[in-house]
Amino acid sequence: MDPVGSVGVYQRQCLSETELDFPGVPYSVSVLKVGYCSPQTDGTFLADGTISLITGIRTILVDTGGPWDRDVLLRSLEDRGLTPGDIDLVVGTHGHSDHIGNLNLFPSAQTIVGFDISEGDRYRPNQLAQGQNYSVDQHVSVIPTPGHTGQDVSVQVLGTSAGAVLVAGDLFESWSDEDTWRDLSLDCAVQEVNRHKALRTADVIIPGHGLPFRVVRT
Amino acid sequence: MDPVGSVGVYQRQCLSETELDFPGVPYSVSVLKVGYCSPQTDGTFLADGTISLITGIRTILVDTGGPWDRDVLLRSLEDRGLTPGDIDLVVGTHGHSDHIGNLNLFPSAQTIVGFDISEGDRYRPNQLAQGQNYSVDQHVSVIPTPGHTGQDVSVQVLGTSAGAVLVAGDLFESWSDEDTWRDLSLDCAVQEVNRHKALRTADVIIPGHGLPFRVVRT
Repeated sequence: MDPVGSVGVYQRQCLSETELDFPGVPYSVSVLKVGYCSPQTDGTFLADGTISLITGIRTILVDTGGPWDRDVLLRSLEDRGLTPGDIDLVVGTHGHSDHIGNLNLFPSAQTIVGFDISEGDRYRPNQLAQGQNYSVDQHVSVIPTPGHTGQDVSVQVLGTSAGAVLVAGDLFESWSDEDTWRDLSLDCAVQEVNRHKALRTADVIIPGHGLPFRVVRT
Repeated sequence: MDPVGSVGVYQRQCLSETELDFPGVPYSVSVLKVGYCSPQTDGTFLADGTISLITGIRTILVDTGGPWDRDVLLRSLEDRGLTPGDIDLVVGTHGHSDHIGNLNLFPSAQTIVGFDISEGDRYRPNQLAQGQNYSVDQHVSVIPTPGHTGQDVSVQVLGTSAGAVLVAGDLFESWSDEDTWRDLSLDCAVQEVNRHKALRTADVIIPGHGLPFRVVRT
């Protein structure tokens, strides 16, 4: 399969399994574990969500994988010289079990799951449900991108060597998901709007169940 | 405040903090931690989800509290002579952080979060999204009750000494939530239908953020 997909005026180029790091100043983005979704002959699916790490002024984990990923996640952080206590902010792009299985590794971090922002059991009012971004700082924003569920968010990182990186959760399943994403969507019309917005603004998109892909606007 | 609320032909009677156990054969239901939602003067909310345990033929945990509840949950299970490995099924009624914070304590259990049913990374097709119950056995059913989010479930336990117990997640915030639940609902119309259905069929309802209450049909 030719790793190029085009939708409208956007062309998507799938990156390889060795292109998981997007260094930058002040923020870098790395994929710690590439998610997957693989239908089986018995009707079940093997699935896990992509886990991504944003490092720089703050240290941000985007999605934590399924409950079975605890040790993989801890080892992956350790390989980068990090302990769970180093994570300042954990973002669960949406509340599905293959994305939010390990929140309790980071009880002291600020936590965003969908549209809920909390520190411990203190929940802060915010405007994500009203369509407004939550700015971590001028480089990193949490963006409401519902559709797959009613309360999805993506994390946008500006200024990496690859340009603007969007850690998108299941806004995109994979680089070539045109035949599949609607079946998994709670609201296709809303999700489609958010997908097009992402394709207009991101240079690299990290999807929830596959390799990162580059967006080329022609 | 008089702990009696009536909606239509249903009267709700709030139970006390000592009425958290509903023994039965073959299944008993116990509230391990009563959830809360308490607005603060600075505009934030202190909130946590109710954690419930169903014991009998199978051992079922319904909701796991927030990420900060790890030790409380482990101690509470230990007080009942249980280890995490004894839990056969974990149900997250919906994917909000105050309900699904500790899924990774039970990596070997069957896991249901919202409409997703999995064992490890193997996800099983089911009919929850089509409105059909998932029967654990003839006594325990997982019932789709969306509205608060797009994919809520409740767990119904038949035949306790108190009758049919519904562990309802945030289908109900508390016994007296008529002024508050709509503000937290993704789809009020759908949630209202599911609330009335619950009030028609359950004898005791365990809400997501308050004490259990009895339903008296007049």
